[in-house]
Amino acid sequence: MNVAVLTGGVGGARFVRGLVDATDPAGITAIGNVGDDLEVLGLYVSPDLDSVLYALADLNDEERGWGRAGETWNALETVDDLDGEAWFRLGDRDLGLHLVRTQALQAGTSLSDVTARLARSLGVEASILPATDDRLRTWIRTEDGELTFQDWFVRRGHREEVAGVRFEGAEAARPAPGVLQALEEADVILFAPSNPFVSIGPILAVAEIREALEARTVPAVAVSPLIGGRAIRGPADRMLARLGGGTAPAQVADCYKGLIDVLVFDEEDVDGAAGVEALGVRPVVTKTLMVDAAARRRLAETALSAASETRVPAAATSGARHSSRP
Amino acid sequence: MNVAVLTGGVGGARFVRGLVDATDPAGITAIGNVGDDLEVLGLYVSPDLDSVLYALADLNDEERGWGRAGETWNALETVDDLDGEAWFRLGDRDLGLHLVRTQALQAGTSLSDVTARLARSLGVEASILPATDDRLRTWIRTEDGELTFQDWFVRRGHREEVAGVRFEGAEAARPAPGVLQALEEADVILFAPSNPFVSIGPILAVAEIREALEARTVPAVAVSPLIGGRAIRGPADRMLARLGGGTAPAQVADCYKGLIDVLVFDEEDVDGAAGVEALGVRPVVTKTLMVDAAARRRLAETALSAASETRVPAAATSGARHSSRP
Repeated sequence: MNVAVLTGGVGGARFVRGLVDATDPAGITAIGNVGDDLEVLGLYVSPDLDSVLYALADLNDEERGWGRAGETWNALETVDDLDGEAWFRLGDRDLGLHLVRTQALQAGTSLSDVTARLARSLGVEASILPATDDRLRTWIRTEDGELTFQDWFVRRGHREEVAGVRFEGAEAARPAPGVLQALEEADVILFAPSNPFVSIGPILAVAEIREALEARTVPAVAVSPLIGGRAIRGPADRMLARLGGGTAPAQVADCYKGLIDVLVFDEEDVDGAAGVEALGVRPVVTKTLMVDAAARRRLAETALSAASETRVPAAATSGARHSSRP
Repeated sequence: MNVAVLTGGVGGARFVRGLVDATDPAGITAIGNVGDDLEVLGLYVSPDLDSVLYALADLNDEERGWGRAGETWNALETVDDLDGEAWFRLGDRDLGLHLVRTQALQAGTSLSDVTARLARSLGVEASILPATDDRLRTWIRTEDGELTFQDWFVRRGHREEVAGVRFEGAEAARPAPGVLQALEEADVILFAPSNPFVSIGPILAVAEIREALEARTVPAVAVSPLIGGRAIRGPADRMLARLGGGTAPAQVADCYKGLIDVLVFDEEDVDGAAGVEALGVRPVVTKTLMVDAAARRRLAETALSAASETRVPAAATSGARHSSRP
């Protein structure tokens, strides 16, 4: 079975890990957010791609949630001692990857090629693709002005309320090689339980990806990142309240209007099922908290079986893609 | 007292450390070799400047001889896991410095400015200057062809015999800001016990530095890196035998012809005193093995007192420098 999964952030990486345990990894393509990529200390850092990479290579730190297990922080400590740029937490093991990637990028390798190479070196069987090889950056509009994503998220601890989100470079960005093919060949398309605005949003901001999703002929299933209207970590709940008009499942589904057929959400939000249905999206209620490997896998299995039980509405199949094949 | 000391490599760094313990650090200017600088993993690495920096900041690893104490190797281990460029041993703490320096250089800061900034951050009172801010690289001619210094020294373990040495960029290289002033204002000029060909040689390859040394009005004292005709570490003995015609003190003195007034060398080489004298250089015999802090300091004190007992030969004072001040 071929599965394409849009993902960003730690929750997304955990979900993709569950997916790898639930189905054949060789059929999985994770399409990752690059909107929160950054250059720090002269290195190209791609936090969301790396979260997936580390989770699939069993290198991730389960407790901390991000970065690598068994990590040390000696390089950054030195950077701090030398009054360098030490605000973004880069561990020593993590740095090794950023060095290799940055060197490859500077030598002209594309982000998708270097990501594939890193995944191969780490024995990852699933495909991990950046949404785009082009520069695409998430900017956060606040009352203090527009901030880069990581400035807002890490440096300022996402304290400022978000008035809006902008994806610099999105208009010109093309899908990375393999992205459209993965969507085309997928039997199921999944949206990981990631922040709809700043994790999945930058992926959907690439026009050809959005169009491919609109034109899908297979079911698309999103998993809500909220439980009881609250985010496990991060600002998804505050952003939904402010930018989406509320934190009910319907507001999550509405972020993906026309792009999904099913929304999987938590039992705690069961009251919101009707609202989801009203949007023409099938609600599937389950436990969504990924407390351990078994829970991650169960959630992935729920999403996959929800897809298998779903007929794609005719509207979604009226796209140009298949009509060009008489 | 103002002391200018030419240095390169680990022995040089130890000697400069002894010097700092022997006299007022504020008067010391270490002029460091940059011929073995390299770009590795996209980082600008300056091994000899860093050896001095770490030695003066008490961060150096005494036992290993190079790099930092309490070092970890997790970034490089990751680089190796990812099939990256892992041949050059960069520790995590060391990497932190390379990251800060590389970022500063890429932002347009000169090597001398960033070196000064790093030294300040680490509380180093002595001045550490690169011989030049310009690109100057040591190439080693072998039967296998010409190799970059670090390719030969580190990657191949300096196994190949050296047929010659070339300093790429030396012709166009200007002394870094402060170098000529330090030589001009010095009460004593010292040559640390470093490899004459690949540690001190690249410094002397900068024409204005060599000319300033030739025109000196103060005593210049070199310390031989050989004991009993052998190098403590590294290929200085083999290079002297091959390129200098022998490993006696006279051959060391001959490397610095016209540039030094005194050669300090080890008791084991006392038989070579006459040969040194025959070159018009005063021989000073002492224990030169820097086994501990006390020995380093004693060696530095010996070099300083040798200078104070030395009259600069008239030939060395006939330069244009002072004659322009009637």
